[in-house]
Amino acid sequence: MKRVIASLLAAAFTCSGVVADEGMWTFDNFPSSVVEKSFGARIDGAWLDRVRESTVRLAGCTASFVSNEGLLLTNHHCIASCLAENSSKERSLLEEGFVARGRANEIKCPTQLADILVAMDNVTGKIEAATRGLDDRAANNARKKTLTELEQACEKTSGNKCQSVTLYNGGQYFIYQYKRYTDIRLVFAPEAGIAAFGGDPDNFQFPRWCLDMGLLRAYVNGKPVKPAHHLKMNFEGPRAGEFVLVSGHPGSTDRLLTVAQLQQLREVEFPPSLLRSNELRGRYIQFSKTSDDARRIAEDPLFSLENGIKVRRKQLDALLDDNMMAQKRHDEAELRANVRADKELLSVGDPWTDIEKANAFARNLDMELSYLEGAAGFSSRYFRIARALVRSAAEREKPNTERLREFTDASLPRIRQQLAAAVPIYPELETLTLSFGFERMREWLGPDHPTVRSLLAKDSPDTLAQSLVLNTRLGDPEFRLALWNGGSAGIAASTDPFVQLAQRIDPEARSLRKRYEDEVEAPTSVAEEKIARARFKLYGTNVYPDATFTLRLNYGTVQGWVEKGKPVEPFTRLAMAFERATGQAPFRIPASWEKVRGSLDLSTPVNLSTNNDIVGGNSGSPLLNSRGEVVGLIFDGNIHSISGAYWFDNAKNRSIAVHPAIMREALDKVYRADDLLRELGARE
Amino acid sequence: MKRVIASLLAAAFTCSGVVADEGMWTFDNFPSSVVEKSFGARIDGAWLDRVRESTVRLAGCTASFVSNEGLLLTNHHCIASCLAENSSKERSLLEEGFVARGRANEIKCPTQLADILVAMDNVTGKIEAATRGLDDRAANNARKKTLTELEQACEKTSGNKCQSVTLYNGGQYFIYQYKRYTDIRLVFAPEAGIAAFGGDPDNFQFPRWCLDMGLLRAYVNGKPVKPAHHLKMNFEGPRAGEFVLVSGHPGSTDRLLTVAQLQQLREVEFPPSLLRSNELRGRYIQFSKTSDDARRIAEDPLFSLENGIKVRRKQLDALLDDNMMAQKRHDEAELRANVRADKELLSVGDPWTDIEKANAFARNLDMELSYLEGAAGFSSRYFRIARALVRSAAEREKPNTERLREFTDASLPRIRQQLAAAVPIYPELETLTLSFGFERMREWLGPDHPTVRSLLAKDSPDTLAQSLVLNTRLGDPEFRLALWNGGSAGIAASTDPFVQLAQRIDPEARSLRKRYEDEVEAPTSVAEEKIARARFKLYGTNVYPDATFTLRLNYGTVQGWVEKGKPVEPFTRLAMAFERATGQAPFRIPASWEKVRGSLDLSTPVNLSTNNDIVGGNSGSPLLNSRGEVVGLIFDGNIHSISGAYWFDNAKNRSIAVHPAIMREALDKVYRADDLLRELGARE
Repeated sequence: MKRVIASLLAAAFTCSGVVADEGMWTFDNFPSSVVEKSFGARIDGAWLDRVRESTVRLAGCTASFVSNEGLLLTNHHCIASCLAENSSKERSLLEEGFVARGRANEIKCPTQLADILVAMDNVTGKIEAATRGLDDRAANNARKKTLTELEQACEKTSGNKCQSVTLYNGGQYFIYQYKRYTDIRLVFAPEAGIAAFGGDPDNFQFPRWCLDMGLLRAYVNGKPVKPAHHLKMNFEGPRAGEFVLVSGHPGSTDRLLTVAQLQQLREVEFPPSLLRSNELRGRYIQFSKTSDDARRIAEDPLFSLENGIKVRRKQLDALLDDNMMAQKRHDEAELRANVRADKELLSVGDPWTDIEKANAFARNLDMELSYLEGAAGFSSRYFRIARALVRSAAEREKPNTERLREFTDASLPRIRQQLAAAVPIYPELETLTLSFGFERMREWLGPDHPTVRSLLAKDSPDTLAQSLVLNTRLGDPEFRLALWNGGSAGIAASTDPFVQLAQRIDPEARSLRKRYEDEVEAPTSVAEEKIARARFKLYGTNVYPDATFTLRLNYGTVQGWVEKGKPVEPFTRLAMAFERATGQAPFRIPASWEKVRGSLDLSTPVNLSTNNDIVGGNSGSPLLNSRGEVVGLIFDGNIHSISGAYWFDNAKNRSIAVHPAIMREALDKVYRADDLLRELGARE
Repeated sequence: MKRVIASLLAAAFTCSGVVADEGMWTFDNFPSSVVEKSFGARIDGAWLDRVRESTVRLAGCTASFVSNEGLLLTNHHCIASCLAENSSKERSLLEEGFVARGRANEIKCPTQLADILVAMDNVTGKIEAATRGLDDRAANNARKKTLTELEQACEKTSGNKCQSVTLYNGGQYFIYQYKRYTDIRLVFAPEAGIAAFGGDPDNFQFPRWCLDMGLLRAYVNGKPVKPAHHLKMNFEGPRAGEFVLVSGHPGSTDRLLTVAQLQQLREVEFPPSLLRSNELRGRYIQFSKTSDDARRIAEDPLFSLENGIKVRRKQLDALLDDNMMAQKRHDEAELRANVRADKELLSVGDPWTDIEKANAFARNLDMELSYLEGAAGFSSRYFRIARALVRSAAEREKPNTERLREFTDASLPRIRQQLAAAVPIYPELETLTLSFGFERMREWLGPDHPTVRSLLAKDSPDTLAQSLVLNTRLGDPEFRLALWNGGSAGIAASTDPFVQLAQRIDPEARSLRKRYEDEVEAPTSVAEEKIARARFKLYGTNVYPDATFTLRLNYGTVQGWVEKGKPVEPFTRLAMAFERATGQAPFRIPASWEKVRGSLDLSTPVNLSTNNDIVGGNSGSPLLNSRGEVVGLIFDGNIHSISGAYWFDNAKNRSIAVHPAIMREALDKVYRADDLLRELGARE
């Protein structure tokens, strides 16, 4: 029963009998009446406000307030970078886990932040006014400039963090206002061995047995935050078939892309990126085998990389699926025919062809752009720092609205926070990734590309990487801040090899980016806006936009699915985790669990599956019942959920959550975290 | 000016003005009259016989007799395994090169062989008779059985090596007779630094500067072979625009595949195999960095792997090229329409749909087949040896015609030669590749696949690989031969862990293979035969078959091409190699060359390009002028030549050869190989 967005949306609200549990709805356009009709659940304005203000956006993830003292529930894998930043070669908090015994022992996550969405302002009309009558490039510049101005004005007025949001691929523009906390501390993390039991082999699989949870606490002025709202834990969890909702920040979907755009992903973008990632995976794995220290420091980047590989690989499978592409072609042909038949849509013209032209240009630019402006070539944290320093020095000298968008006044505090954070950078890993990047740059751009020739005139990728890493001081936050404070003059005078390299590459990299913005991004944005407007006109506005890492709410029910003719049950129990364990990572249950195995209730549910429509970024989202209580913690989707980037397959796409009962069981019997149990309402 | 086979072939011999230099012609069907008309060159029967008997097939490559004492000219990369087999952790002949000073110092290549094609017998009628009226599976079995019988009869009568050959994807069947030599010795190899100057970055690129040559000598009864014919070297080389031919063994092309088959490659077969290869590349590269020994032992497998990656990657690009696929679709639609319109072809039915059905079955089988029967899972030389021992013991007990085809009587001597060869196997590399194979087997088949669960019940991929490698004795040729001689009883009694593993996996692996043969191979073969017959009927027989690593002759001219608007000259000169050198591998010119740099003629041509239609397997082929003299040594194609797997793009597809002048210059001034220069006729 595969379905695809466009045709589905056209039908969903007319045929009341056919409601797929699809849709990543913005809080200002949630289909409460449909939900009430189909499930009898009342999701009213007060409910929405309370849940919205309890939901928190982390860097790349979601969390929720679960106590009135700022306690945040999220996934273990969402706090992995905090754990890694507080680790060393000799000691890994990822491996060992962490329990803060008392507030004083909660430790700071140096680069984490927590945003709560407090207002949404539709500025579509202002953008339309600012771009009206302009050609594609001028419109592209005017749009960015206007969004920067609107953000700036909003921050000034509100004192909050303000960010522009593009919905429906340009159909709507918003300014979202967030209350932002930057003092986030680590409260609890289980060992990776149980948080990610089954590791990469089990990632995106179900049945699963993962305690993928972590607890943070938001502070302000040295004191725990008292949030306006928080969510109540319901440790009993949901029943099979129960109506449930997920509030969180799905990162990115591409359901509204044109066929040409999907082909571009399939043919131009994904294959080289997957090949690169797989080679890097091999390098990390082999590096990990050289010592325990090496294994510890490669663990976090390898985990992220493997997760990304699995996502991309299954997305590629989806894009190679003839059924899906045939459906997309059919829907697009229908939309184009409808546009042509509608006299009011004459001005839309043929944006699909405009996108194809922009894609042809992108094909020519893609490799150089990836290697010189993107992260493929100078693959290094030192280089990223150096580029941020070099560019921010140059950009800060310009008026706010003339800058590259990532260096507007609204963005600078976050950059400074990251530069100032004393987090470990491992020279061995920097050398590994840099050498890899140089070697592939030479392969894909060719040894005769002028930049490659000049970089490797007398060096191999290895010798160049080694010499850069050996001679840099960018690992020192004080040194970084001195460069930040020194502005352009300081940058120009710097003898740091990465700062010099970033300066040397900058003219070419900026020029590639400019060409991309003018020749690809500008016409594509205009074309997408036209398609979006045509859709609104033809299909109405009771539709949801593609995911953009902004707050969404979706609904579904607790259920399994049928895999190759066999039903998959929606709940797993603790007993099977012990049966599944082999004693070798990643199928090794931590000693802390083995020690108390006899006292554990092996019938405790561990994970559960639902048909909520989620995607990466929803990690850490609360799974809620109709009363808004937390009945689960989203941490993954099943393997079929990955194709959710392009369409929602209600028959197979499932999200996966940690069951609250296993959280209570673990905090109680394994981690003896009585204070936390009390704070979470699990104990008097 | 892109063209594709089917339509081209239909036109090529009717419009005399349009002759593309395309075609890998069998020696019994060479278009001599077309060549004479277009180029004025007379390629008569005597010419063809002389060149055929001078051309030699090596394992995976081509060579040619260039003296009356059995001297064989081929590529350095074609003798890489001989060099590796005569190397150790401490000393690499690949890196150091080798010059035998006198016959007594020529060293044996333990697994090399040399085949000369002496007869071609068309047995199509016999196969048709044997399969007539049978269903697909029965026909598949009868075909194999008959080919085995014909091979056996041929070997008995002739005393030569006899191998069946399928041409035109089943349009014709032949028995080819080879004179085989198995005592092949190493005479000369330059250092890899100059043979493969530019390494992987320059592989498939032109301009190039590679002395990719090697010299072997065939022996029989301890004495150099006196070949019936040999080719004369012409050290002046060819002129730009000169008519030239290539005699050799192109390995495999897929120009006659149906659209569904091309899609199957693109979507099912290539992506996972490329991803695996890239990860393995990363593992090898990182392993190489751990020590000089590690670098030496990983060099040869890494070289092969990277070559394969580049080929597959560009083949995938070709398959993702909308222009090519549109042309293929167009040609197929035309052929199908022609078949439907021709009453004599009624019996052909719709083999294209039969292939699609077989492909759908293959999609379901593919992963298990790759991991359990193919090389993806048990990726290890020890395992390959163990499987050969286990299977040959079982198969030898069956009648010759009932065996798996790789264990017929005709094949056994080669297997025994390989088992007996004392070649180094490095436990470190075995552990690396095995652990990798197990890890990916778990990823792609899933941790719950019964075989995966049983293999990794208490082990990780690493611990399992280590324990297997630590406890095997299969590195010892005596031990291997004892097992070979011991037959089934010896295998059953063996405690060697690899032998036990191969036995344990065998029932499942054989059953997967059987299902593949019955459900995929059988219907596909029948369908391909039908399409081939329809093609013959509609387009005539003046066409060339897809490459099958059998002897072919093709023609063209010395020429460059136009790359992004700029002409590429067809010759390179030595001076530029020194300018291109960075001092770091793979752009480091060996010390032996640097030492005599002052005495070298820097205007010597090094490499040249022609528009001959070649493909992997043609490596080492002689480039001949119209008199049959060697004017070059094919070692590569340009990057556009890789799409030659699917079609021939005469505007851009170019082959690349070593110029004979640089061979003379190097043998004379760098390697001081006076005897060889005399033997090659370069000196009195």
